[in-house]
Amino acid sequence: VPTRRVVSFLSDYGLADEFAGVCRSVILSVAPDVQVVDITHEVPAHDVRAGALTLVRSVQYLPDDGIVLAVVDPGVATERRLVGVAAAGMLLFGPDNGLLAPAVAMLGGASAVVSLNRPEYRLPAPGPTFAGRDVLAPAVGYAASGVALSDLGDPVDPAGLVPGLLGLPTVNEDGTIDAEVLWIDRFGNCQLNVGPEDLGDAARSGTRVQVRWADQARTARVVGAYADAKESELVLLVDSYGLLSLALDRRSAAEECRLRAGAAVRLVPPRPGQEDGS
Amino acid sequence: VPTRRVVSFLSDYGLADEFAGVCRSVILSVAPDVQVVDITHEVPAHDVRAGALTLVRSVQYLPDDGIVLAVVDPGVATERRLVGVAAAGMLLFGPDNGLLAPAVAMLGGASAVVSLNRPEYRLPAPGPTFAGRDVLAPAVGYAASGVALSDLGDPVDPAGLVPGLLGLPTVNEDGTIDAEVLWIDRFGNCQLNVGPEDLGDAARSGTRVQVRWADQARTARVVGAYADAKESELVLLVDSYGLLSLALDRRSAAEECRLRAGAAVRLVPPRPGQEDGS
Amino acid sequence: VPTRRVVSFLSDYGLADEFAGVCRSVILSVAPDVQVVDITHEVPAHDVRAGALTLVRSVQYLPDDGIVLAVVDPGVATERRLVGVAAAGMLLFGPDNGLLAPAVAMLGGASAVVSLNRPEYRLPAPGPTFAGRDVLAPAVGYAASGVALSDLGDPVDPAGLVPGLLGLPTVNEDGTIDAEVLWIDRFGNCQLNVGPEDLGDAARSGTRVQVRWADQARTARVVGAYADAKESELVLLVDSYGLLSLALDRRSAAEECRLRAGAAVRLVPPRPGQEDGS
Repeated sequence: VPTRRVVSFLSDYGLADEFAGVCRSVILSVAPDVQVVDITHEVPAHDVRAGALTLVRSVQYLPDDGIVLAVVDPGVATERRLVGVAAAGMLLFGPDNGLLAPAVAMLGGASAVVSLNRPEYRLPAPGPTFAGRDVLAPAVGYAASGVALSDLGDPVDPAGLVPGLLGLPTVNEDGTIDAEVLWIDRFGNCQLNVGPEDLGDAARSGTRVQVRWADQARTARVVGAYADAKESELVLLVDSYGLLSLALDRRSAAEECRLRAGAAVRLVPPRPGQEDGS
Repeated sequence: VPTRRVVSFLSDYGLADEFAGVCRSVILSVAPDVQVVDITHEVPAHDVRAGALTLVRSVQYLPDDGIVLAVVDPGVATERRLVGVAAAGMLLFGPDNGLLAPAVAMLGGASAVVSLNRPEYRLPAPGPTFAGRDVLAPAVGYAASGVALSDLGDPVDPAGLVPGLLGLPTVNEDGTIDAEVLWIDRFGNCQLNVGPEDLGDAARSGTRVQVRWADQARTARVVGAYADAKESELVLLVDSYGLLSLALDRRSAAEECRLRAGAAVRLVPPRPGQEDGS
Repeated sequence: VPTRRVVSFLSDYGLADEFAGVCRSVILSVAPDVQVVDITHEVPAHDVRAGALTLVRSVQYLPDDGIVLAVVDPGVATERRLVGVAAAGMLLFGPDNGLLAPAVAMLGGASAVVSLNRPEYRLPAPGPTFAGRDVLAPAVGYAASGVALSDLGDPVDPAGLVPGLLGLPTVNEDGTIDAEVLWIDRFGNCQLNVGPEDLGDAARSGTRVQVRWADQARTARVVGAYADAKESELVLLVDSYGLLSLALDRRSAAEECRLRAGAAVRLVPPRPGQEDGS
């Protein structure tokens, strides 16, 4: 088994406490040649869905033969398993609670899964197990050092992994689309779970699409780039992940529209022959 | 003197400014093969006690032969010394203000201490010395490159290090315990300076312990895991550092109880024969 | 072309999203032996001036033969170029919008500039180009791996780089100085664009300088160190970058004086023979 060079680390630990730092140190204590790269540690606390979405946005950019450590774990110390998963050339470690599943699916599915239940690859804990520090980080370290995944725990049927719950949009008969805000980024752009193919002809630049949410409705113009938005104009554009996003030029669409991750949004494209969706 | 591979870095610099980044760069300019691992840079500004507690929680998980750089330094440019300390197989660098002392004690005490007073191992400063950047980071870099600690400065009597001030709990004659909140973690759990051994029989799961602070009192049930807490139930459990912690399941006990680090808390265990402490 | 070991990375991406992490991963996918060091990712969103100032404060402490990746890019997907710049022994990559210019000037000017317009050194994007991830990070990775700057894009006249706009202070005929707050650091110290040489004799410790801003005026005593400030006393001192800074001992001068980066400040030194500037 070859050694691996890069560990990409995602969690809801935040950076104020030493949680992420200690996990990094444990990995390096076992595998001093590895590099630990932070994806982010600011996943909202206990928000498995947000963590899964962050991981799925990132996974295609991680080194092909790298290791992923992902920890968002509201069920600490309960029955959920801690697992190691082989998918394409990568290894992913984390709780089996849906956090890893969408990334594993994007990689083409798991070729092997183990339950990290071998005490010889865990740290002794002075109290209840701290899963990241005591189980996952050492497993990552040993895997990076060349210990085979099959040695780190008992095999688990890949079909038994807890699936992720990422909603698909509904295209209604009248052509409207019931969508969801997947993610608000730092700049306040609201990524929807809708690709340009779902909008069909209405995805062309210049189209005006009505956007409805809560008790509000507003028209958004389809544009090619953030900078094409006029001042105060709400726009709809394909973002750099290939999904539609609501945006305002250099301002936060999320703040102005009071949209949050998970919010339901209906898109009303113009009918054929109409100029806009209002 | 062998080279060292990993530097663990803790400070109150925050991440908004370039302070931590520049220190990392200075270390790597001197020792390009070292890896700098952040423990945290979000120690509250100038809070030596919080920094010392963070370091003491982390030190047992750091690489055995690693280097620690710790900077929380309210006395910048005054009389406090900047020191390098050898303890067990590790080297620790920081201000001599109590920040390093508890970690050094946990490692079994200092075998050697030097004052970092050699100009040839400092950076020239364009103004007053920026201790992290101009003195500590270069010393860490030289130590990682194999310069002996004894070459980095004049020897200091290890007994002369400024001690840390971490309070012990008081067990009163009536069995109550006067304790202190050591730390509020990201999830709002309140770690106390009390181990399960201090509570004696009352540390068994199911015991109800009365908790008093400020003008409030509330009963906490001793449980084995965060997830054992019922909704809205305050619980007392041994945390993953082996200390007792006040917690609510998936919510912030600190916020609900308005507890802060340093707050005084009295634990009233049930008397023998009684069912609870109220 | 030799390989390079250290990439110093500055952006306005923040750490909540995976932007910075994905850029790090892309660099390491191309150049697995490089170390990526974060300067900071908390430059205020779209604030090119703040980013340029952070970079210029840092650049002298970065490894001599290192690479800089800097991304603060309000003009995403518009006409601004993405460039690679050779200056002294360093390579700097970023948008050509004034972000790099002050650091390049401090390094003695650019010896070569290229426009990063070669598709073979970019990542394919699923939507509009994400400049950091799809263009700049791969270019940094290839440059670190030994690809010559001249292979990464077409040459650009160094004189055509967009200049930075960092204001110089104005010394008036009556000896007063019209200055600007360059930077508020984590501790609330207000760095001015004024060096001690601009103040002349008044830069000596003990001098009282009147400071005027907005509709306020206050006297600041020139001191040698933060700790020389008496309680509640506003002081003026040379900071560790060699510039004058307004400070309060262990408290935030910015908060107390309601000063922000970019604020105009007038310094009124005492006239010769006078004791203070009030």
